[in-house]
Amino acid sequence: MAARTGLSRATVSRVINDSPRVSPEARELVRAAVQELGYVPNRAARTLVTRRTDAVALVLSEPENKFFDDPFFASTVRTVSQHLSAAGTQMVLLLVHGPDDHVRIARYLSGGHVDGALVLAPHLSDPLPEAVRDLPLPIVFGGRPGTSEEGLHLVDHDNVGGGRIATEHLISLGRRSVVTVTGPQDEYAGIERLDGWRQATGFDDDEAARRSEPGGFTEDGGERAMTELLARVPDLDAVFAANDLMARGALRALRAAGRGVPGDVAVVGFDDQPAVAPRTDPPLTTVRQDPSLRTRHMVDRMSRLIAGEDVPPERTVLPVELVVRASA
Amino acid sequence: MAARTGLSRATVSRVINDSPRVSPEARELVRAAVQELGYVPNRAARTLVTRRTDAVALVLSEPENKFFDDPFFASTVRTVSQHLSAAGTQMVLLLVHGPDDHVRIARYLSGGHVDGALVLAPHLSDPLPEAVRDLPLPIVFGGRPGTSEEGLHLVDHDNVGGGRIATEHLISLGRRSVVTVTGPQDEYAGIERLDGWRQATGFDDDEAARRSEPGGFTEDGGERAMTELLARVPDLDAVFAANDLMARGALRALRAAGRGVPGDVAVVGFDDQPAVAPRTDPPLTTVRQDPSLRTRHMVDRMSRLIAGEDVPPERTVLPVELVVRASA
Repeated sequence: MAARTGLSRATVSRVINDSPRVSPEARELVRAAVQELGYVPNRAARTLVTRRTDAVALVLSEPENKFFDDPFFASTVRTVSQHLSAAGTQMVLLLVHGPDDHVRIARYLSGGHVDGALVLAPHLSDPLPEAVRDLPLPIVFGGRPGTSEEGLHLVDHDNVGGGRIATEHLISLGRRSVVTVTGPQDEYAGIERLDGWRQATGFDDDEAARRSEPGGFTEDGGERAMTELLARVPDLDAVFAANDLMARGALRALRAAGRGVPGDVAVVGFDDQPAVAPRTDPPLTTVRQDPSLRTRHMVDRMSRLIAGEDVPPERTVLPVELVVRASA
Repeated sequence: MAARTGLSRATVSRVINDSPRVSPEARELVRAAVQELGYVPNRAARTLVTRRTDAVALVLSEPENKFFDDPFFASTVRTVSQHLSAAGTQMVLLLVHGPDDHVRIARYLSGGHVDGALVLAPHLSDPLPEAVRDLPLPIVFGGRPGTSEEGLHLVDHDNVGGGRIATEHLISLGRRSVVTVTGPQDEYAGIERLDGWRQATGFDDDEAARRSEPGGFTEDGGERAMTELLARVPDLDAVFAANDLMARGALRALRAAGRGVPGDVAVVGFDDQPAVAPRTDPPLTTVRQDPSLRTRHMVDRMSRLIAGEDVPPERTVLPVELVVRASA
């Protein structure tokens, strides 16, 4: 088109995008060429010139049932959708639910259909982050993915610090026998919250192994793990559960075992899910991480990248805080 | 491009899409023109020629909280994603959650970023169906939208028939005083299930008004409506609730009022949600509609439309069936 009209490519681009900064003559030249070439400046075509679609992908890589069962994912979708919508940007949600989906997702992302992608892929074994990290569009990760973080834009909560303040709170209450129900050890959220518990307790490897039990981030898993810990560490008087759902399961197991909360056993969770933490019996002391805050940081980073700002890649770590209710 | 090379537009298209059916000379001509014009045949550009992105949008137009709270929507997303994925197609989920979103959605859909759109927009007042119905890409609606159905591709469950068989079942049990908890009357699912109840009972307008109470498709709404009906129709011995969540709320209200189910009051729901109907106390007799069946029909219709088959627009009405459990 530029060759045909004798105008610079930038001028052609400005005409097609209705910029006021072009002369009527240039506009006319381009219009004539468009007509002759059968060139239709629809949105997909404009993508070639402006690289803008006013759409941003949210890629959720997670077995679907988990996606729909976990209120944290739902609230992420909701807040991302709200924040993007407020900025006049369309959220395009892509779910990854099969082992081969990452190839198709990478193809879609690099096809000019979105201006950037927000990616949540918590599992270390997930091939998606590796497949998308170097695509030619801005990518911002929410939570640490299972790929080298060199050069990545990454917004995360302080999971280590959260596990530590939860446990320090239990110790400050005078509890002497603290155990933990852990999240999956193929996710940083699971790994780092356990790290925080270990930093606060100072247990050696053997003692840490005896005093921890995996609960898979589910309520039933938390109940099973708590039952197991009660049998293995009968004198336990405090438990840090690495998310609220597992804490709710632990409360069920403690009730079944006749242990009072917080009298016999103090319980702290993680997340402060509005539908869970304030509604358990007794209401749950927990570590609040705010999905809306993470979303805001991710969307803000994305907007600046799309605008072409020179934003250095970095891992932003957001603070968490202890919310004290009745359980500890 | 066609003008520049002297080739037909179809030939240019075949070259860009690597069709074997072009001569080496034509290929070379197009390649030279591509280079001169700076024309990059990436996926977005190819869309102009082939109209294929191997992606299909699922547009959900519904206040978000409802989307995330209603398991029927979640199961729709899941089954659509599975069916499209099995066909090698990327599901692109677009959520509508503000009054002005339909303009942005229509723009995205017509921008060449997807090959077609599956649209769920149940509210009669929703402007989205009108905004997207005539876009130049295949659109298949799931459930009746609030726009003229002339010329639409539409897959629906038999809501009228479902309301009728639910109510006929109650009557066949010898129940003489049947009431109903209704869904929103700005959705066909709400309107038509009430229609089915009226067809089966034959009540006149006054009697139908006295014996029906809106429950808003929510559990709390169902509980409130049932309490209201118990006060207004003290001799009631059967209730048809237009979805399972409202039926669960009605069961709660009946228990609070000391009415045994099904002894004093027989209860039938609608949907057969796996997480709800088999788990109520007593387990719920209900009308099964299979979201997976609707999805399969929608995806199948979409595939044929994308393939260019001559599929006449029509409303496909899928059968529903009564599932008898303990509540009626």
